[in-house]
Amino acid sequence: VSPRTPPTFTSFTQSPGDLALTPGDADVTCYRVDHVVPVRGAWQGGVAVDRSLWRLELAGRLAPVEAPFIGATGHVVYTDSATKSELGRVSATPSGPRAVLIPIRKSAEWWALAQDQRQAYFDPSSSGGHIAIGNRFAAKIYRRLYHSRYLPGSDWDFLTYFEFTSNNAGAFSELLTLLRDPHHNPEWGFVDREVEIWMTRV
Amino acid sequence: VSPRTPPTFTSFTQSPGDLALTPGDADVTCYRVDHVVPVRGAWQGGVAVDRSLWRLELAGRLAPVEAPFIGATGHVVYTDSATKSELGRVSATPSGPRAVLIPIRKSAEWWALAQDQRQAYFDPSSSGGHIAIGNRFAAKIYRRLYHSRYLPGSDWDFLTYFEFTSNNAGAFSELLTLLRDPHHNPEWGFVDREVEIWMTRV
Repeated sequence: VSPRTPPTFTSFTQSPGDLALTPGDADVTCYRVDHVVPVRGAWQGGVAVDRSLWRLELAGRLAPVEAPFIGATGHVVYTDSATKSELGRVSATPSGPRAVLIPIRKSAEWWALAQDQRQAYFDPSSSGGHIAIGNRFAAKIYRRLYHSRYLPGSDWDFLTYFEFTSNNAGAFSELLTLLRDPHHNPEWGFVDREVEIWMTRV
Repeated sequence: VSPRTPPTFTSFTQSPGDLALTPGDADVTCYRVDHVVPVRGAWQGGVAVDRSLWRLELAGRLAPVEAPFIGATGHVVYTDSATKSELGRVSATPSGPRAVLIPIRKSAEWWALAQDQRQAYFDPSSSGGHIAIGNRFAAKIYRRLYHSRYLPGSDWDFLTYFEFTSNNAGAFSELLTLLRDPHHNPEWGFVDREVEIWMTRV
């Protein structure tokens, strides 16, 4: 039996605390929050636009801090082998300074679908599809997905996280527009809560 | 935006505590532990054969108790629409008095596979396949799957849970034999830690 390689757990928090900052324990990134854009559903605040946000990543456990956004990096759920290899080859690495955190929640209807029904929304179609759209931007936009739905106390299903250089800001806007276009990506119809948190890595 | 229906979180514990037993808060089931059978990997104990085990189920949060086994009931990941409907129609309901908890961990190799590669191990094949084998026993054996891999602090990937009447004990043994047969279910080759906890509902 090989030793367990634990998943990485991530908290985005305004209060990094002392415990989580022990060197070698947490991987810490600091951001200035530039502005917040509610996209779908009510946004009850909690992140002021003039504040900082910290990302704390730990192996195997959550940082012991109060955090409005928590997630875990997981295995791929809709990506096939060929796409996974291709994405590994072409995907952008974290670049900064632009960083956008977009927490997302999907409807109960989505979660009641069977695997083949959900998978169909991701596979490439003549008009797009989530994976085909995302892949077009993989080389310019660094993307990371955190799963939140099955973390106790989470209000979100996913934290989607993006990083890009300032000259790729246009490409990022185009990516968001396509992903939210019901013709190109009908999957987005199941999103019932979403907010954009625009930040700068500092 | 509809109100969130939170996942159910489950702890199997020897110490149910006071907090978790507030009526209407947790759904509590009590078991006598009959015997423990290590199947794969080291089993460092923690559940004595002469002890009780409690299952505490809460919506949206884990019971605030020390628990060696924690999990969340989730959406289906490998089941297609037709199979999901069929299982809903034929599946056994919890019957007792026999109950078996089988925590499972899979190798890093498994978790690195793409979705299509993992899916292939579940789909029916000429020699069996996980889903085809399981479906044959769905009417006799109550099955419930808890996901554990992405819960902070968990040592397991899944808690598989079964209930059946005493006269279906033979069918349950047959189910385990087929699922662990590399010819009928090659997926089991990725299991690197597994233990059977045989119990009686009391």
